[in-house]
Order: sequence, then structure tokens, then C-alpha cells
Amino acid sequence: MRTLFHMPLDPASRAIRFAMAEKGLPAQLVEKRPWADEDGTLAAANPAGAVPVLIDEPPTGGEIAVSPASAIIEYLEEAYESGPLLPATSAGRAEARRLSAWFLDKFEAEVSVFTLRERVDKRLMRRGQPDYELLKAGADALAWHLDYAAWLLDQRHWLAGEKMTIADIAAAAQLSALDYIDFVPWEKFPPVKDWYARLKSRPAMRPILRDRIDGLPPPAHYDNPDF
Amino acid sequence: MRTLFHMPLDPASRAIRFAMAEKGLPAQLVEKRPWADEDGTLAAANPAGAVPVLIDEPPTGGEIAVSPASAIIEYLEEAYESGPLLPATSAGRAEARRLSAWFLDKFEAEVSVFTLRERVDKRLMRRGQPDYELLKAGADALAWHLDYAAWLLDQRHWLAGEKMTIADIAAAAQLSALDYIDFVPWEKFPPVKDWYARLKSRPAMRPILRDRIDGLPPPAHYDNPDF
Repeated sequence: MRTLFHMPLDPASRAIRFAMAEKGLPAQLVEKRPWADEDGTLAAANPAGAVPVLIDEPPTGGEIAVSPASAIIEYLEEAYESGPLLPATSAGRAEARRLSAWFLDKFEAEVSVFTLRERVDKRLMRRGQPDYELLKAGADALAWHLDYAAWLLDQRHWLAGEKMTIADIAAAAQLSALDYIDFVPWEKFPPVKDWYARLKSRPAMRPILRDRIDGLPPPAHYDNPDF
Repeated sequence: MRTLFHMPLDPASRAIRFAMAEKGLPAQLVEKRPWADEDGTLAAANPAGAVPVLIDEPPTGGEIAVSPASAIIEYLEEAYESGPLLPATSAGRAEARRLSAWFLDKFEAEVSVFTLRERVDKRLMRRGQPDYELLKAGADALAWHLDYAAWLLDQRHWLAGEKMTIADIAAAAQLSALDYIDFVPWEKFPPVKDWYARLKSRPAMRPILRDRIDGLPPPAHYDNPDF
């Protein structure tokens, strides 16, 4: 059966779950913490030792292990036509890919490693308290990214244009993970809040918002579309 | 005319130059240092303020600005059939994309930011001497990556399989930039040295190896295919 190695609060894993649900592709979810891969199944599927990894049985037969998230997205688009994640035109595809990479890579490096990874991964790895200097740096970078998203959404209905694309999915995946730790100043960025409310209502996002980490409850507004 | 915003020793820029030459697509090269974008042309073409950015006039008409490197690669593959950078099968494409992301992103984060960026960018930005602790961390990570490449090349003629792909181009781009500062212990990794000698001989790589940075000459073996 189609299987996704993931972590519940890992933004890239969330993006792939969201994308597969939009394409109508069910998958068995198996949680894999890279720092606790005792049996080596994660390293065997992805020598980089990171989630997400998609283990798929493509329509053309066989079994295939795909990673990282950017390669999974291209694979899904090529293997399954339903629920396209990318627009049809060259310019549209380039813009969706630019912003998908922006949120999967740039946002990750500038915001999530200093916030989510400090708050959540350190706790899961039992590595002590978060570093408040890093959290502050992440919060500052987050404000800049939210400002950029608000600027885009002033001109467009979705981040990369007039249709929802992988860019929205990647951004929503990041922000949903940060929202779990109540780190997103939604009230300061109304266009982003409105956009996120639209994404929260999508059936593809509902199961992701139902995930809970033991001992770390999300804020009350977390899975409420009218937040 | 097709234009590439680049920096001569930036690995991702080198990968795109190499890829375009393999596809037979000439481009005007314009050097853009992200930290000296006084007229804002780089930020206008890529809000992330990073090179490479491809400004293309696609066969379908109009003008398009594409970034980052991963999106440029997908764009080139979709817009131009000649000189394919990805294999034809799903499994082949996934493997080439996995290793392309490995060298463009993981290798960059684990090796190049600590070595090339310390040695070259700091010099260009006049930010003082490299930090030797960081250079040592980068050298250790480089040995691990070269070991992984050697392991792959023990089983395959090229990094991602039996044909040259974007994975080889991305890896060669990183290693060529590190080789410019004489940082690659080729003699310890004979399969990687042999593979790199094959890439060095390709006409697509020759112009890249002719670039020189003022006041920073490369080692004598740098552009010699029989090194």
C-alpha cells in the first residue's frame, strides 16, 4: 500500500499529506523520527535520513521510494493527473515552483529551524529548553515572510495566482505547524488570515489539523476554520 | 536575449550554466552579487534576492523570470526537449531529482556554506578572514559526501544511473567551485575523481572552468581534465 514516512509537525511532511489528499491519493502514514531510526528503514528509503519519504506503487508497476518533498511533488504531478498541484502554463508553473521552494526551503531555513525545531524537535529529542534568542530571530523572520505573503495576496486570490497550487499548500503546511505552537500573529496580517481560513476549510487539510502531540496541546483556535 | 543572473563561483549558478549548455541553449551571463543589488534588478527578478535567475523568452512567447535552480531545471526540461536532464522513467526521474536536491541543497547547507561561502563570499564582501572552525566542519562533511558519491559510483556509471543527469551536473557544479579553492581531496576518492574527469571533458563544462576571480587564482590542476 502507498505509504508516507512522516512526522506530524514536520512542515514538508504536512505539505505532501495535503498534496496527496488534494489529488485523492490515500496513503498509510508511518511516523519516523530521523534521530531514532534504529531499524534503519528510514535511511534505507532515503539515505538523507529525512522525512517525508513516499513509498508508492505507481500505475506503471513496481515500487518506488521518493524524496525529498520537492521530488515527491514532481513525481505526484507526473504520475497522477487528478487534482493538479501546478498550473498549465510555463509562467504559472515557474511561479508556483518558486513559491513552493520559498516556503519549503527558505521559510524553513529562516523561520522554522529557529522556532518549530527549537520548540518541538528539542522537546521530542529531550535536548532541553528552547533558545530564546533563536525564537526571537525566527519570530522576526516570520513577520517578514507574512508581510510578503500579504503583499502577494493583495494582488492575487492565491499565492501563485488565481488558482490554488502547491505554493499555497507549502505555505499552509509551514504556517499550520507554527500555529500548533501558537506562534503566528494572524491578527497583524488580515489577508494571510483570510487566505489561511480558506485553506483550513478544505477537506484535504482537516485530517492534518486533527493530529495531536502528546503533552503539547495546540491553542483553541488551531483547527477552527472561523478563528 | 536569454539572460542568466549568476555569480561565477556560485554552485547553483554553475549547475544552471552547465545544464543550459548541455541542452544547447546559449545565454548572456550577467553577474549579480545579492549583497550589492543597488539598482534592485536582482530583487525585481527574484524577490528572494538570490542567484541564479533565468530570464528567458520561451518558445511560446513572452518573457519569464525563473528561480531558484530547482525551478529553472524543471522549466528547462519542460520548455526544451534537447539534451534531457532527467531520465524517461518515474524511478529514474525520482532518483535524479533526489540527488540533484542532495547536491544543490543538502551539500550546500552542510559543506559549501562553511567552506566556499567562508572563503570566497567573505572575501568578496570584505568581511574579514574565514573562520577555521567552520572550514574544518565543512571539510569533515565534504569527506562524508565524497564517500557517498564514491559508493554510488561503485554501482553506477553516473550518480543517478547509467546516463548522465542533472544529479551529475549539480554535484559537479558544487565540486568545481570547491576545487577552485583547492578544497577537494580527490586522491582519497578515486571513483569520484574518475567521474569528475569525465565531466571536466564535456564541452558544456569548459567555459565554466575558464572563469577566474580577480586576486584568487585556482590551483594548477583546476581546469586540466587529466588532473
